[in-house]
Order: sequence, then C-alpha cells, then structure tokens
Amino acid sequence: MNSHLDPDRQPMYWVGDWAGRRRALTPDRLAVIEPHTGTRLDYRALDDRVCRLAGWMQAVAGIRAGDRVGLVTTNRLEAIELYLACGKLGAVLAPISHRLTADEASQLLARLRPSWLFYDTTLREFVAALHGTATQCPQFSFGGPQSDYDRVLPGYPANAVNTEVALADPALIVHTGGSTGLPKLCVISHRQMVWNAFELLSAAPDGLGRRRELVLFPLFHIGGWNTVTPILHAGGCLVLQPAFDAAEALQLIETHAVNHFGAVEAMLKAMTQAPAFASSDLASLEGITTAGAPCAPATMAPFFRRGIPVSQSYGLTEAGPSNFLQPRADQSLETLEARQQSIGTSLFHCDYRIVDPKTETETAPGVPGELQLRSQHTFDGYLDDADATQQRVRPDGWVRSGDLAVTEENGQVRVIGRLDHVIITGGENVAAEEVEAALVAHEAVQSALVFGIPDERWGERPVAWVTGPEESEIPAVMASLDDKLSRFKQPVAIELVDTLPLTGAGKPDRRSAQAHYLSKHHGDPT
Amino acid sequence: MNSHLDPDRQPMYWVGDWAGRRRALTPDRLAVIEPHTGTRLDYRALDDRVCRLAGWMQAVAGIRAGDRVGLVTTNRLEAIELYLACGKLGAVLAPISHRLTADEASQLLARLRPSWLFYDTTLREFVAALHGTATQCPQFSFGGPQSDYDRVLPGYPANAVNTEVALADPALIVHTGGSTGLPKLCVISHRQMVWNAFELLSAAPDGLGRRRELVLFPLFHIGGWNTVTPILHAGGCLVLQPAFDAAEALQLIETHAVNHFGAVEAMLKAMTQAPAFASSDLASLEGITTAGAPCAPATMAPFFRRGIPVSQSYGLTEAGPSNFLQPRADQSLETLEARQQSIGTSLFHCDYRIVDPKTETETAPGVPGELQLRSQHTFDGYLDDADATQQRVRPDGWVRSGDLAVTEENGQVRVIGRLDHVIITGGENVAAEEVEAALVAHEAVQSALVFGIPDERWGERPVAWVTGPEESEIPAVMASLDDKLSRFKQPVAIELVDTLPLTGAGKPDRRSAQAHYLSKHHGDPT
Repeated sequence: MNSHLDPDRQPMYWVGDWAGRRRALTPDRLAVIEPHTGTRLDYRALDDRVCRLAGWMQAVAGIRAGDRVGLVTTNRLEAIELYLACGKLGAVLAPISHRLTADEASQLLARLRPSWLFYDTTLREFVAALHGTATQCPQFSFGGPQSDYDRVLPGYPANAVNTEVALADPALIVHTGGSTGLPKLCVISHRQMVWNAFELLSAAPDGLGRRRELVLFPLFHIGGWNTVTPILHAGGCLVLQPAFDAAEALQLIETHAVNHFGAVEAMLKAMTQAPAFASSDLASLEGITTAGAPCAPATMAPFFRRGIPVSQSYGLTEAGPSNFLQPRADQSLETLEARQQSIGTSLFHCDYRIVDPKTETETAPGVPGELQLRSQHTFDGYLDDADATQQRVRPDGWVRSGDLAVTEENGQVRVIGRLDHVIITGGENVAAEEVEAALVAHEAVQSALVFGIPDERWGERPVAWVTGPEESEIPAVMASLDDKLSRFKQPVAIELVDTLPLTGAGKPDRRSAQAHYLSKHHGDPT
Repeated sequence: MNSHLDPDRQPMYWVGDWAGRRRALTPDRLAVIEPHTGTRLDYRALDDRVCRLAGWMQAVAGIRAGDRVGLVTTNRLEAIELYLACGKLGAVLAPISHRLTADEASQLLARLRPSWLFYDTTLREFVAALHGTATQCPQFSFGGPQSDYDRVLPGYPANAVNTEVALADPALIVHTGGSTGLPKLCVISHRQMVWNAFELLSAAPDGLGRRRELVLFPLFHIGGWNTVTPILHAGGCLVLQPAFDAAEALQLIETHAVNHFGAVEAMLKAMTQAPAFASSDLASLEGITTAGAPCAPATMAPFFRRGIPVSQSYGLTEAGPSNFLQPRADQSLETLEARQQSIGTSLFHCDYRIVDPKTETETAPGVPGELQLRSQHTFDGYLDDADATQQRVRPDGWVRSGDLAVTEENGQVRVIGRLDHVIITGGENVAAEEVEAALVAHEAVQSALVFGIPDERWGERPVAWVTGPEESEIPAVMASLDDKLSRFKQPVAIELVDTLPLTGAGKPDRRSAQAHYLSKHHGDPT
C-alpha cells in the first residue's frame, strides 16, 4: 500500500544524530560528568565537541558513511564523542577490548579492516603491540595534552555535521566475550540501538531524563554502549570512570548523586568488600542492575540491607541486549529481594518463548527449555559469517540464546544455566550451574564446578569438583544437597581440588574438568 | 546481511498485545478511570475485559486478522477495549465520526466494508440513520445494561488471546476532518502508533508512567487514539469523559488529580468561560497541550495566569500525529508563555524541513515555506487511493503538510497558515491566517476571514471580511495593522459582514467568501 521506501531502509537525519537532537531539544541539560578530568558538559557543549570531531573526521580524515572506525579505549568522554560523531557521519564504530591478547585483537582488526584506529593514550602500549594489517590504517590518539585530539580539535570549527542514515544501517560492530575460541563480531544496526533505548525507557515509569548513571560496563562490549545510549537518548546524565575501581565508584556515587548503575557481580562484590562501603553515603542510589551472568544472593545482600534494590537483567548481544529486566517500579524491596534470582518478564517490545532444545516446540508450563527471543533489536548477523548467523537466528525471527530457562508459576523467568552445560540424566535436563549453586550454599564450599559423565543406565550423571572443604566434610556437603536438589540432580561424586580450571575468558572450564576426570577415571566414577 | 525477514514485516506477539504486555509488566497499576460509570480498572482487570471481548470476537463473531471493525462511539471504555482487542486479533479498527451526516458516514462505511459494526448505545439513532452497504454487516452495541456487550460479555471466559502481528500491519483506518469534500481514509500501521508513543515518551523527561490524562480528543480521529495509546503503552492512567463538557471536565481534573490533558482551542475557551473555572482546584494540572490548529494567546492566558503552561503541538494524521511539541520540561513559565505561538522543534525521531512550495528546495533560514516531515510514523497511505498517497508522500520519505511555516532565529518553528490560503502578492507569500490574527487583535473585531483577489500589478491582494466593529471603526481597524503587518500583507479592503461563512467541518470558508466577493465586485475591489 505504501508507495515510499521500506521504512527500515529510509535514510533520515535524526537516526545518527543523537547529539544534535538532544542539543535541539534540551541544550541546557547536563549530559556528561567526567570527574577525573573535571569535565561537565551540557548537551549543547557535548554536541559542539561532537561536531568538531565529526567535522575533522569528515574533512581531514576522509571518513565516510559505512567506513569502519576501530576503537581501543577506557571509559572516557572522547570514546562517547567518537560514537556520536560516527553516528553523524554514518560511520561504523568497532571497539576492541584491551583485555584481549595482542594476537586476538590483531586478528579481530584484520577481519574488521577499519579505515582509522582511534585509541586512548593510556592504552598506547596495547596498541603498539598490535601487528599485521591491524597496524596499517592511520591512528588517532585521545586523552591527555599530548594526544592528537587535544592537539588538533580544540581549534577546529564546531559546524553542524549530519548525514542521512537508515535504521537498517550498521552503528557498531562489537565482539562478544569469546569464552570458547575467537570472539565473534556482531553487526549492530541503528535500529537495534534505538529499540534498546525504547525498551529501557519504557521500563522506567519515571523516565530516564532524571537518571544520573554511573557507567561501569566497559565500552568495548555492547553493555557499555547500551548504558550510554538510552541515557543520552532520554536526556539524562552520564558519570564516567575510566576503569572500574570499587572505592572510587563509591565515592563517585556520593559526590555526583548517582541514582543508578549497572554492574557485573564481581564489581558489586568488590564494592561491598571495600573498606569504604559501610561509611559511603549511597542515599542517592535508587537501584542497581546486574547483567552479564546471574548474580548470587550473597553479593546482593549488602545492598538490599541498605534499602537499595538489585535487579537482574538478561540479554544477548545478538538479541538485545535489553531483553529482560526485573523492574523496580511497583515492587517493594521485599518482593524484589524475593525475586532477586529471577529476570522478571521480557521487556515490553520483546517476545520470548521456552522450547525443547531438540524439537524447538514450546515446553509445558514450568518445564525448563531453551530461552528464545524475538524483537526489533535483533542484531544484523555475525560479520562475514552467514552460517553462524543462520544458526543463531531462525527464519521466523527467533534468536537462540543457548540458555536454559524456566517460567515460574508467578510468570517470573529464571535462567538456570547454559544449554552447553546441561547434563541429561534419565531424560531430565540438569543445569550444571544449578548444582554448583547448591554446593556453594554449603558454608565449607568456596567454589564448585559440575559436569556430566557417561552412564550406561541414565545416559549421563553429574559429577562435582569443589574447593574449600576438608576431605572429611565431603559427606556432609553431599548430605546438604538433599533438601536443595532432587535426587537425580545430585552429583554421583564430589571431588576435592585445589583450584578450578578456568577458560581464557575467566569462566569455569567444565569441558577441561570433564576431560581430566574421564582420563583419570577411565569413565568409572565410583 | 541479515538472513531473516524484513524487521518491519516480522510478525511478533507483543505488537498487537499492549493490554497483555502491560498486564505482564505492571498488573497492579491503575489503567482507566471512567467516572460516569464508576469504573476503575488496573491493567490486570483491563486485560481481562479485553481478553473476554477478543475471545468473543474471535470465537463467536469470527473476526480474523486483517478484518475491519467499524466503530461509532463516544469516549467510552468499551471503545478502548475494542481497540486493544483488535490489536490482539490483528483486526483493523475503523472509527467513524458521529458528527458526519448519515450520508457521509454511510459512504465511508461503504468504502471500508467492515466485517462488523460496533456502536455506543447513546449513538443508536445515528447508527439507525445509516444506509446502503453500511448496514449490511452484523452490529454489536455497548454501553448500558441493554447493550449486547453487557448481555454477552460478563459471562464470557477471560482466556488469553494473542496473534502475531507485524509493525507493518494496519492497526487503524481513521478519517481526516474533511474540510473540503469527503473525509479521506488514512491507513495507520502498528509501526506508526508505537513510534508515536515513543515520540511522546521521549518528550517527557519524567516519563508517562505517572501521567493521569484526561482524554478530551474524540476517539473518531487520530488525536484520541494518540492520546490513549502512549499512556497505555507507558502504564499511565486515562480518565474518560464520554463527550466534552467544560464544567464537568474541570470537576474531573479536581476529583481525579488529572495532571495533563490535550485539547483544541474551543475546549480551552469553554473551560475558561465556565462559571466554575475560577473556583476549580487545578493544582494537579502540570500542563495542557493544544492540537488541531494554532491556539490564540487570549485563550491560553487564563491558564498561564494560574501557573499552568499551555504548549502547542503540531502533527498530521498522515505524518504523525506526533511531529512537533513545545516541551514543558526545562522551560520556565515565562519562556513557555513567550513561545506559546511556536510549536517548538520536531520531536526526537522526526525530521522536518521547510521548502519553497514550487521548487521543493529548502528555503533560506527565516524564509517561510511548506513544512515537510519524515519519520517512522508516516501513515501507510490513503485507502485505495495510490494517487492521493503519492501526492502526499515523496519517494524520499518526505510528507507534504500543506502548511506554511518558518523556523525562527531561536530554532523555534511557527506555523503561519495553510498553503491553500496563501495569497501571493508581489512574489511574497502572505498567510490568510496571519492577517486574520492581526485583525482579531483589534478590540472591536470579533472574527475575521481573509482571502486573495486578482490584481493586475501584484498578482493577488488580500481582502478581509470582519464581524464586530461599527462601519465607522473600519478605518481605525485598518490603521491598527500598521505596526503589526508589513504593508504588502495589509488588506486592500476590509468589509463588514454579519457572520463569516463556514465549511461543513465548521472551519472558515475562505473560498466561499472569495467567490461571493468577486461576484459582487466583478473583480474590482476599490
């Protein structure tokens, strides 16, 4: 019926120009506080800086729509300016983690073929260690008086820059964590970023315009950009810390009246364990959102005790990352604490379903299965890898999460573990993570890792490795599971080890433990 | 790159199921207050009612995705339930104004070919007067104990109903006012409605979740649905009045702590002229938005005097209707009063440009031209009229507004008048509305109407008809224009008339005045 272009592919001025839109709408609102440089910018001043950078990128660096711009950075203001400047030009920002090895980062850059590489001077050594085609593009440094940015940009004119960009055009190429093998490069469209912003905005009954958000997620993963983008979209204010430091984060919350932040469990743990935690004034803090992986009750407890709710969120780079969020509004602190291990229900504009991993038909209510997601914030595929993309996204729009989850009776969804870690015993799915959590709940157990071993009768049976207890305490640990886990979920053996094996990404390496166990026992667990 | 379907055409469960989404997310929030029936519903109860209705529509009435459902209604709860139920089924709601003549409404229904007609029992006589094919479909009445709704639905099971709907699928077919000729039928997609909701949500720094909105725009135009939809989307609360009544509206604001409403100028005038205005407690009211046509300062003044800002909004059924809004946030009452005749700048996700009506190239800054709009909330065309659609929407996505507007030095946009009413004199564009406003500013003038007459030297010259002054005052009225209008904008003649001619839609009929004037003067104005 519609005679004009497919709306998703219609180039428009506003799509890439978030800095310019906010300047037009709310020029005087505070946009960014960067305490370590003493910078405070309203939206007018932010847009001026972005216009200078975008103007230089266009006129001097010759960066055009569709060009890829590599980025190695800490959580600095200039990185956010670069993101907004790329938007104005229709260029694609490709941040690379400086936690990767030089080889890994060089390989990613070789695949990305950026036209320029922008980097933070504090990461000069990391950039110097890159090799191969990664080093063949021109480079531009920022951060500090000796940087290219500070040398070139302050005198550059702040003329308005704007390019027509379509929602279907790529905004970012971000890599995943890469817990197994090389990280994957995900193409993230403007559509995906704006719909993520809509999800978070719709989930906040009081809006995000008054939000003062401490940005702790790194800007080399989607989580960082998905913190920054919805706040700038809504006219809120970002507080920046270049790299996470628990004591300083507590101080920033107090000094800058931060009312929300998102964090992974390790950050929350570090904050509660910092000596300053008890004396920090956290009165401005209305809530905390955790992401990345389920967060244990013990880690959340110190915040709940201070009246600060901690909500789990859930999402995939490939499908969100704003897919689920336990909402703070309309729920008492008690309810939120009771629901702290759930991720709530899917956000307004996101379908979810739980399917049998084999048949991909929906499971009966209360029966765990693979969590699948469908929305307008699905990614645009893995870079140059149609096969992997097809594996991930079904023709009817459903994105496979690879996570085992269940919808509980009250409609709350709980993520149980990775499908890869599921042990199938007597036809039942047992999540390694669920057994691990039950083991760690015993006071003597410091850490636990669970994997399956072949079993003639049951198919598989779970086995556990633990650190912490004395050998003599193992029977008591085993006994403690009786009121926590059904019999079939309980490990047939608990072995004491000194340390648990970890993957390169620092996650529990269940495969390595399983291989080690099987070679030692020749498949005989008893 | 993306292997899956065009996102705009991807059917998803959430798209049509706003009632179900809100129930899942915020079941306990108050959704609707209907004072005249004493009904208060939270989102759980609202969704239950919508599920009953949708279940009945599906199972008994046989209404399917894509079917059109005609609606004749006052602003009643059941009409909103029907809208939400159509969403769950993927059916298309087609409201018809009961202010049309029976002939006009019958013609519209004949073009719509609805599978059912739902109507409000208080409009039974209007429906009885319909004729032709309009009366051939089954009918269902609501409102009051004798209605089909009250007879059938209370006992019907409230089972969940949901259909996969794509953003590109039609949600509504609404007719425009039809100031000249038969109203046009506009196809409104789910995409258009959700992006409108995003516009209004993004424009509210404190969100819309705490909004308690008095719905005054009628539900037979896009304005009514564009009031209802963003509030339900955000989990706010609607307060309903079946038909506008100024004194009762003031009472509802006080009783139900209404904090916002939208209205056309005539409603605001009636409210300020109601005897109860001075004594009404309007303390809860944070702001008022006007729409439909520019609102005169004198109409806004009584609200501003009470500290309540009135903001102009602007939009087209075909392009919005959320295109422009003078934002209340971050602007003092003084600034808002100073900017009351501007519509602010375009909303976050909406491009605008001002072009020479002939060449369609952008005018120089400060030079009036046609306002054009581009966004994701463009309509999907006039029903069965590709030619008219093509006239309205350019291949590059720009929608012609037919309005003359200008961007002022401070970036504020002002709508001057209809392009149709422009008088071109000596190559300059003069908006009839601008001259009329200058005339009405004279204390003796009650109303004014301006039109062009042919002129050998200048092409056209403006002529005015006025009501109010004595014949002897006309020279003083003419003289009063000197400090308000440039010489070329001033009428060559001001004629006194008893009443101004109006179109069927109640708007000033400049063409009829012009024709009458020309036949009387034979083209000689002096």
